Amino acid sequence: MKKNAENKTLADQAADQMIRYIQEQGYVPGDRLPTEADLSKLLGVGRNTVREAVRVLASRNIVSVRQGSGTFLSEKQGLADDPFGFSFVEDRERLTRELMQTRVIVEPPIAALAAQNAEPEEIRRLEEILLEIEALIEAREDYSDKDTQFHAQIASCTHNSVVSRLVPVISSGVAVFAQEVPSEEYKQTLRSHRAIYNAIRGRKAVEAQQAMYLHLLFNESRYLEEMGDA
Amino acid sequence: MKKNAENKTLADQAADQMIRYIQEQGYVPGDRLPTEADLSKLLGVGRNTVREAVRVLASRNIVSVRQGSGTFLSEKQGLADDPFGFSFVEDRERLTRELMQTRVIVEPPIAALAAQNAEPEEIRRLEEILLEIEALIEAREDYSDKDTQFHAQIASCTHNSVVSRLVPVISSGVAVFAQEVPSEEYKQTLRSHRAIYNAIRGRKAVEAQQAMYLHLLFNESRYLEEMGDA
Repeated sequence: MKKNAENKTLADQAADQMIRYIQEQGYVPGDRLPTEADLSKLLGVGRNTVREAVRVLASRNIVSVRQGSGTFLSEKQGLADDPFGFSFVEDRERLTRELMQTRVIVEPPIAALAAQNAEPEEIRRLEEILLEIEALIEAREDYSDKDTQFHAQIASCTHNSVVSRLVPVISSGVAVFAQEVPSEEYKQTLRSHRAIYNAIRGRKAVEAQQAMYLHLLFNESRYLEEMGDA
Repeated sequence: MKKNAENKTLADQAADQMIRYIQEQGYVPGDRLPTEADLSKLLGVGRNTVREAVRVLASRNIVSVRQGSGTFLSEKQGLADDPFGFSFVEDRERLTRELMQTRVIVEPPIAALAAQNAEPEEIRRLEEILLEIEALIEAREDYSDKDTQFHAQIASCTHNSVVSRLVPVISSGVAVFAQEVPSEEYKQTLRSHRAIYNAIRGRKAVEAQQAMYLHLLFNESRYLEEMGDA
């Protein structure tokens, strides 16, 4: 199970071969890959090695295996489920503070870039998510999944795939926290999401950046206050 | 191989158990874990399941298996080798541009935070790396690994573990490019690394941020020019 180039397991080598094969064939996410028997012939390795290689690629979210229907190119495109190993961090409070600090650094300039680069279709999708968030907030329901989607959609408006991969990782880590908004803060939460959306729709990069700062800093200060009280 | 909470494989469940066990025991990176037989007893699952769980944790860089000497808690602490799946991106030029844009967004405020939070010991380590980079540049040798280390060390000066995990991922992705600095740019490269170091050592957050901007924007413009010429 060593990982350096000189000392890869057979399965790792076969996995690399499979990646090259997938790229050469121009498969897109959702496409079905050849059967184990066909891959064994195509790559010139045993079926056990193919099976092990498929497991490696599945654990890296490059392919997904659906029992009974085959192996498919994954929609996750190789983005790991927990790429930074957050599930393995013990001090959850410290991690939450660090994630919030990282979001304050990263997300405001991303909102500016989104305002500059977003396509009309992407802005429409952002509005749909905003309306769902507003409905959940009005109904006093947990909107954390939708909130993660809102920030992910802003990231994809930048048309920078690195940013699109990064934002969900740092924003879903603190989502647990969105379920406990006290009543008196609903208004501010509604207002700050809408302000970000309005700035992006209006192509106002500076205002999008500032609205995102306000949103994240407000959340952060609320969290730190709560922790101080606890 | 499904990943949702309701439908985990036995091996994934055993892997989760092992993570909890590792945390309860307070193991630190480098510690040796109990043998397969002992883990089987401790977790109440079969040895095959333990073996499969160890493989899952190794692929997530939580443990590392050294043939003949046992299983250890990994120094990588769960940070995936290629967390964002960059090795799977076909358009390398576009990825490089996107990585550079992301670095320009992320790293300048990180340099500011580093200048504010760095401990003397961390600044000494940063200087060591700087001197190694300078020696390599003078000798006209490839300094890309050391450059990645330099930026990683700045990230760890922030004392924010999310930032420390993030920076190596986005900076090592473009390192390939550092090996071809044309002669006339050696001076600027030397100067810009030293300017960042000086600002951090002098606890000047604003200057550290600006020096990092200059460094990254200079690199970016050089790359875009070269691509335009090609």
